[in-house]
Amino acid sequence: MHEQTIVKLTLQYDGTGFHGFQKQKHGAVRTVQQDLECALGGLAARPVEVQGAGRTDAGVHALGQVVSFAWSGALPPERVAPALGPLLPPDMAALESEAAPHDFHAQFSAVAKTYAYLCYPARRPAPLLRHRALHVPAAFDPALAEAALEPLVGTHDFSAFENAGSTPRDPVKTIHAFTLERRPPFFIFLVTGSGFLYRQVRNMVGAAVDAGLGRMGPQDITRALESRDRALAGPCLPAHGLYMVRVFYEPSLVSHECIF
Amino acid sequence: MHEQTIVKLTLQYDGTGFHGFQKQKHGAVRTVQQDLECALGGLAARPVEVQGAGRTDAGVHALGQVVSFAWSGALPPERVAPALGPLLPPDMAALESEAAPHDFHAQFSAVAKTYAYLCYPARRPAPLLRHRALHVPAAFDPALAEAALEPLVGTHDFSAFENAGSTPRDPVKTIHAFTLERRPPFFIFLVTGSGFLYRQVRNMVGAAVDAGLGRMGPQDITRALESRDRALAGPCLPAHGLYMVRVFYEPSLVSHECIF
Repeated sequence: MHEQTIVKLTLQYDGTGFHGFQKQKHGAVRTVQQDLECALGGLAARPVEVQGAGRTDAGVHALGQVVSFAWSGALPPERVAPALGPLLPPDMAALESEAAPHDFHAQFSAVAKTYAYLCYPARRPAPLLRHRALHVPAAFDPALAEAALEPLVGTHDFSAFENAGSTPRDPVKTIHAFTLERRPPFFIFLVTGSGFLYRQVRNMVGAAVDAGLGRMGPQDITRALESRDRALAGPCLPAHGLYMVRVFYEPSLVSHECIF
Repeated sequence: MHEQTIVKLTLQYDGTGFHGFQKQKHGAVRTVQQDLECALGGLAARPVEVQGAGRTDAGVHALGQVVSFAWSGALPPERVAPALGPLLPPDMAALESEAAPHDFHAQFSAVAKTYAYLCYPARRPAPLLRHRALHVPAAFDPALAEAALEPLVGTHDFSAFENAGSTPRDPVKTIHAFTLERRPPFFIFLVTGSGFLYRQVRNMVGAAVDAGLGRMGPQDITRALESRDRALAGPCLPAHGLYMVRVFYEPSLVSHECIF
């Protein structure tokens, strides 16, 4: 019998084939947590339960999701990720694993996260990009979209950008940086913040894309924020353009870097 | 009753969900030709049969496949592509259509084609790239791979780079240009030639990737060409990294351009 260690594991996945991160009670659908716990359980020869840094929705991708779990397997923590590789489905990969402090929790210990939302302006949707990025009309003006990001940076009550359907929590969040990166054919909305409300990123980028199409301006974003009214804050974009990029656990290490 | 016109139509598709281009006799599987003919038949209100410029294998993608067909529908040729859009599945798109000379044939009238093969060197396969590009070991050296392309350019008997299983045809082909383009995280093998034997591109790039990993050198490529022996010419790479990029019908318009 080995002593229990807390392990921190970093994951990538293609969200297309998953009904989100969270395990379902009546589990006839694939979820990230379920497939991961199944592989970890095989490795530990006992059930393993994981906590994710964020519960990505169905179709949302991850370049650097973090999970934590108690580990009493024979394998040292840093060997868990490489050993997991062959046990995971091809739409999921374990990047690295390490021992974490005994009170580490992937969700509650996080101090900041970076998300990316990819879109591409074109006359028509591209079949090869359909589960990876949002098609937007060719008229999309990146300068207009960029101008709409500025009012969102800082500490605000983001109620207007939260969808119904989640456990109520403090609507005041801090956005450290919100930028528009150019990676032809993509425009990447990159946002780093203290935490995000339910669908907040998809809603904020929805407003910014609307701004890029001339449908709203920076002053409408400010008005929406102040109103705390979801109806004023633009559309919620589909899941398939969203990527969970990084999770930070050390305030001094928080950065805003586009790793695409 | 409208007169028959020959229409030239340019297509994009994600090859992942198709069992190749060609219609199957016992058609329980999805093919590009079948889905396209089904949509065109709906538009023309009569059966339409298409010829493709090349019969891409299962899993091979297309950015610019060309098909031709006889058209007697009410719609003018240039309106066929836009009208087809909503009738096609989401992994296929019609880019443009136009009237062609009465003797135009997508395959036999072609004078050159460009293909691309995408690979990315990394410590492990990336889930989000798994149907789009080939994972190669991180030790891949692009300069070595590049040096292996040179002996393949020009007019040669490419028997050593043809797989068994196709109708016998003239093994002498001309490669106009064969380059390695850098589009991080990808390396793109881009080849433009008069025509290609069965699996020739996947076999040539297989040899070049082997060269990039130090497993063969330019002199081995020359020796393989001269031997006409498939066993000396490196591995056939999987389909999912291959893209049919462009088909040319005018010798004066042939170009070698990376449109990624």
